Amino acid sequence: MSSEIGSIIKTTVFGESHGIAIGAVMDAPPPGYSINEDEILVQLSRRAPGQSKTATARKESDTPEFLSGLLDGRTTGAPLAAIIRNSSQHSSDYESLKNNPRPSHADYPASIRFNGFNDIRGGGNFSGRLTAPMVALGSVARQILKANGVTVGGHVFKIGSVCDSKFDPVNVTSEELDNLNKQYFSVIDKNAKQQMTDLIEKKAAEGDSIGGVVEIAVTGLPAGIGSPTSRGIENVISTAVFSVPAVKGIEFGDGFKFAELSGSEANDSMYYDDKTVKCRTNHQGGISGGISNGMPLIIRAALKPTPSIFKEQRTVDLASGKDTVLKIKGRHDPCIVPRALPAIEAAICLALLDIHSEVKPL
Amino acid sequence: MSSEIGSIIKTTVFGESHGIAIGAVMDAPPPGYSINEDEILVQLSRRAPGQSKTATARKESDTPEFLSGLLDGRTTGAPLAAIIRNSSQHSSDYESLKNNPRPSHADYPASIRFNGFNDIRGGGNFSGRLTAPMVALGSVARQILKANGVTVGGHVFKIGSVCDSKFDPVNVTSEELDNLNKQYFSVIDKNAKQQMTDLIEKKAAEGDSIGGVVEIAVTGLPAGIGSPTSRGIENVISTAVFSVPAVKGIEFGDGFKFAELSGSEANDSMYYDDKTVKCRTNHQGGISGGISNGMPLIIRAALKPTPSIFKEQRTVDLASGKDTVLKIKGRHDPCIVPRALPAIEAAICLALLDIHSEVKPL
Amino acid sequence: MSSEIGSIIKTTVFGESHGIAIGAVMDAPPPGYSINEDEILVQLSRRAPGQSKTATARKESDTPEFLSGLLDGRTTGAPLAAIIRNSSQHSSDYESLKNNPRPSHADYPASIRFNGFNDIRGGGNFSGRLTAPMVALGSVARQILKANGVTVGGHVFKIGSVCDSKFDPVNVTSEELDNLNKQYFSVIDKNAKQQMTDLIEKKAAEGDSIGGVVEIAVTGLPAGIGSPTSRGIENVISTAVFSVPAVKGIEFGDGFKFAELSGSEANDSMYYDDKTVKCRTNHQGGISGGISNGMPLIIRAALKPTPSIFKEQRTVDLASGKDTVLKIKGRHDPCIVPRALPAIEAAICLALLDIHSEVKPL
Amino acid sequence: MSSEIGSIIKTTVFGESHGIAIGAVMDAPPPGYSINEDEILVQLSRRAPGQSKTATARKESDTPEFLSGLLDGRTTGAPLAAIIRNSSQHSSDYESLKNNPRPSHADYPASIRFNGFNDIRGGGNFSGRLTAPMVALGSVARQILKANGVTVGGHVFKIGSVCDSKFDPVNVTSEELDNLNKQYFSVIDKNAKQQMTDLIEKKAAEGDSIGGVVEIAVTGLPAGIGSPTSRGIENVISTAVFSVPAVKGIEFGDGFKFAELSGSEANDSMYYDDKTVKCRTNHQGGISGGISNGMPLIIRAALKPTPSIFKEQRTVDLASGKDTVLKIKGRHDPCIVPRALPAIEAAICLALLDIHSEVKPL
Repeated sequence: MSSEIGSIIKTTVFGESHGIAIGAVMDAPPPGYSINEDEILVQLSRRAPGQSKTATARKESDTPEFLSGLLDGRTTGAPLAAIIRNSSQHSSDYESLKNNPRPSHADYPASIRFNGFNDIRGGGNFSGRLTAPMVALGSVARQILKANGVTVGGHVFKIGSVCDSKFDPVNVTSEELDNLNKQYFSVIDKNAKQQMTDLIEKKAAEGDSIGGVVEIAVTGLPAGIGSPTSRGIENVISTAVFSVPAVKGIEFGDGFKFAELSGSEANDSMYYDDKTVKCRTNHQGGISGGISNGMPLIIRAALKPTPSIFKEQRTVDLASGKDTVLKIKGRHDPCIVPRALPAIEAAICLALLDIHSEVKPL
Repeated sequence: MSSEIGSIIKTTVFGESHGIAIGAVMDAPPPGYSINEDEILVQLSRRAPGQSKTATARKESDTPEFLSGLLDGRTTGAPLAAIIRNSSQHSSDYESLKNNPRPSHADYPASIRFNGFNDIRGGGNFSGRLTAPMVALGSVARQILKANGVTVGGHVFKIGSVCDSKFDPVNVTSEELDNLNKQYFSVIDKNAKQQMTDLIEKKAAEGDSIGGVVEIAVTGLPAGIGSPTSRGIENVISTAVFSVPAVKGIEFGDGFKFAELSGSEANDSMYYDDKTVKCRTNHQGGISGGISNGMPLIIRAALKPTPSIFKEQRTVDLASGKDTVLKIKGRHDPCIVPRALPAIEAAICLALLDIHSEVKPL
Repeated sequence: MSSEIGSIIKTTVFGESHGIAIGAVMDAPPPGYSINEDEILVQLSRRAPGQSKTATARKESDTPEFLSGLLDGRTTGAPLAAIIRNSSQHSSDYESLKNNPRPSHADYPASIRFNGFNDIRGGGNFSGRLTAPMVALGSVARQILKANGVTVGGHVFKIGSVCDSKFDPVNVTSEELDNLNKQYFSVIDKNAKQQMTDLIEKKAAEGDSIGGVVEIAVTGLPAGIGSPTSRGIENVISTAVFSVPAVKGIEFGDGFKFAELSGSEANDSMYYDDKTVKCRTNHQGGISGGISNGMPLIIRAALKPTPSIFKEQRTVDLASGKDTVLKIKGRHDPCIVPRALPAIEAAICLALLDIHSEVKPL
Repeated sequence: MSSEIGSIIKTTVFGESHGIAIGAVMDAPPPGYSINEDEILVQLSRRAPGQSKTATARKESDTPEFLSGLLDGRTTGAPLAAIIRNSSQHSSDYESLKNNPRPSHADYPASIRFNGFNDIRGGGNFSGRLTAPMVALGSVARQILKANGVTVGGHVFKIGSVCDSKFDPVNVTSEELDNLNKQYFSVIDKNAKQQMTDLIEKKAAEGDSIGGVVEIAVTGLPAGIGSPTSRGIENVISTAVFSVPAVKGIEFGDGFKFAELSGSEANDSMYYDDKTVKCRTNHQGGISGGISNGMPLIIRAALKPTPSIFKEQRTVDLASGKDTVLKIKGRHDPCIVPRALPAIEAAICLALLDIHSEVKPL
């Protein structure tokens, strides 16, 4: 039950990095929605490796094959399955890792969890590669949401100490999000992007890596979507977003900044904009009591630096029961943040489709 | 399905602030565990109001009545239900809120979500009062975990800009956590606590409120608990913790600080401590790939300031369709953080019991 | 997770026969439905013991207390909880059963499943008494369905070899069902009922018991409700109905009779009745491919004879590890079928509310 | 959520009869089990069409491709996905069915459920073809159960009024079941099989079809597996078995025969066989209170005759809103029972793996 995102519309992700194929099944999208496969490829290209020096040089031919759930380009309402074949595997690179787990990677805890039977090649089922089918089916969810006026989009907000501009939480537009959604490594402020790129390339040159923060906004979600307690928007989005490897924190609206705010500063006063209830500010990130209040959703997620660095590290040798050192080979991203962004957006799209379907099926 | 925490051992929370009773059902704890009801009362007293000027003067007689699932003080393995009767209700205080929703409260989105049929008295099903049964059954989970060597404990880390010391993520002990677990408004550093108290009282005097951050540690969790993708420890804990009202962010280990770290700084190198694999540092907060690695879990959650402040606020009048102003009456916490801490710990206990049961039933 | 009926609207049943209270929580009914508590009492009285010689003389004061989810007689959309206090317990009657499990009762397998910690008094969590809260919340579901034009009703079809008339699967009316729904031991044919009563009283006099079959019909369910594969109407109803103790079989439409039919005999030809598609016959029991086809649902469930008989039986003594004999004391039903009928109807109502909500939330 | 079997180990089935491929994902099998692909092919061959005159002449190349979850022939503990490509499609045969739904088929209710967007070709997602991946992954479950001493096997018990011998519910052996498991159209009594075959061929010659009953036994399941109320063995197996198209009834042990039995006849008295508790008879079919009691499980399922017959039938024309007649073309089974048997066994294996994992993970 470990690979399922959503409780009503459930998307199960499967595959191992160096196995035959990775894929996902959505059980099941609502019927009758047109799905544009080119748009899916755009999203996949945003997470694809090998696009610049900021990412791994590894090539992935990430063209999904849709096996079911679509007829003449429309959802049938039956489970929608897609697979992506694996290729370009350097499995031998990982041989030595079996006994020498990479620090801060899943290697060691996974070997205990699965009694040593888990596929360690390329990270196996823990690989960031699993986000490819998540992005593919997240794009299906994104298109269904879009057809209902809901737009999801994001940008890299922070790499190291370099920050992009934040979204305007009140006035962010769907056009702005649509524009970001077409880009690899989308950043609002071009100067910030250049500095981020420089920093990542510097870390790459050092054989090191760097973490970051992404910010996602959702426009067009009507008030009244979500539920109290355990099925609030924050509950469902957070559990989905932590499905993306390397995510270690999430916040909504002002998030951790709320600690320093008074209620009089943090409350979003309400008014009528013609006949629609709106807020003058949006500290809550569009969510009160777990339910959408009609303002844009604002979500930020923190990602740790890729643990696979090329510097020598101290680890253990599980065979001998002694300490040892490790030098990781292979191709690894010096910064996973730009490529993780579309995966996190995808997780949010899958969560929102699930939440929306509980209240008002699309 | 909105009020259920956990996927295997499921705890359903019910009740409305001014209804007959609130309660929860755990379906179902493992059989044969001794449950100490006094320990449950200790946890409930940690979240009870009226203890100091930092909390609301409202009295709650939060003695739970256990209806099922216990025999001679031991879990039977059948669903464990507990209820807490409501009393001391000033329902008239809320009459005016029906049309004048409180800014940043659930009032407005809930009225849309439930077509105006939701119980608005005292916040209804959205009330922080619902955390009382969560704490009661969380204490049951806590005791079951404790019997298996797992200790959960926390402290108020930050109120406004006043910070407590952080847990030592490598060396935090179960004794330290046990000691914190007995206190109301537990803080490590006494000076910090005095400053926090002063700040909260100042905000209360101003008719305002203030937010904060709590930090929780878990010791004794063996390596290998948790699953990849959607059933990782972060996934399950985050969705549970967002069940506590006012939580707007969560992070594990270094969390949002990871953005500024290099892999070489963030990775936790491993070594053999006698025959046990340990890490020299604990930036990951004890979790890699969603699975416990044997180090203490470190979790922080951010809480927004109570939206119910006594200052005049601008809102809408849903009856007339015009803007208006609102002055909230009643008794409200100037800072919910100290009382939310045991609720967040409870959510974590429920999540850990659920996660553990998936891998190795207790 | 063992006591939950439904996947979207989930009803968790809890309690032990001789514990403090039994109860159930529905998470959560749709908001705004008027719930008539008298109608709930009518349903509870249909399953109450002590009504005639055909049932146990045990008294149960089965007046549920509604704790949450209702305001001014309407559902709020929050979880709806109800409890029924236990009384009239003769716990000492069960003392000897601890080591001498009753044949064909849960005693022996439950003692292994729960390592001997389960409450054995009165059957504990396995008691037929648990069907009381199921009936109470099933009545809530029944009323919500009724407000949407869907009527659920049933009768005792068979006791021993005495058969009642069957429902006319094409022309059964909601009036007919409503009439049956008000009665204890509802049977269509009065002569059959007399014969059934005579047979049960004869079995009671012999210290023996007898099994039976109930038949339930559902009218007014529109075509198109249900899903293929694992969420078909048969899937969801069957798993719910087996929650009622003593049920050992279920069939839909012609059920086991289908084995002897040709397709040309079993197929229900379709026609236009004005503008509505109908079937001339209803062998399918209103369900094709798991989805309602607009015809009445027809469901039959088989119940085994109460295993608690007063005749001497051979069993084992778990303490000594030797064979022994057992004479059961206490008060037990010679035939559980009349009292199980409203519980089975309740399970069907809970299942239908869940199924309907997946497709078109009520 | 409609295509998922199991609650802890979940198997999601996907695909449409004339789509690209059908398949299933098991999330997730326990790690470390050797899976024999030849054994999977044996099971698939038992459900394959075109083997004799008793089945459709349609050819299916049902060799599954395993995409994930296996390494060196062992389960890794990650989701196990398998697909089967479709071929040999005569999609044009179904063109006319769009407006003229086949009586007692899913055509009409599905068109309403999915607003006409469902894939009607070959029955689409409702096709019996979907049982192929169910059989493939059911075989994986079967092998895991087998490695733990649990054997599942069955036979065609009844076709029309021709009955096979029943299993001896007390003494049925794993050897007997293993032998049945290798055969297509497995029947205990050869004479009965000949009569069944004759009857089916007669129906085929008439352009008609015939229903039947299958019987499945499970040996080696230890006492204490299962749970009360909604997670009993009957609950979980019944909901899984109704995932197989054409199933319209299920019974455990004496099932519907219980109606005519007294408690003194139906109770299974217990004794010590050396140190093991056993029953002298097995009317309960190995299950009391939803939990295994150590005796073999006995399950029977009723299947309706294939609705796709070649005789002219009366139906409606959805385009014109008028009645019409229909003559079905294409290739259809005159009796689906022999081919449905391995699918029902597979559903039982998936259910048992799920149930067992809740109590004692394998």
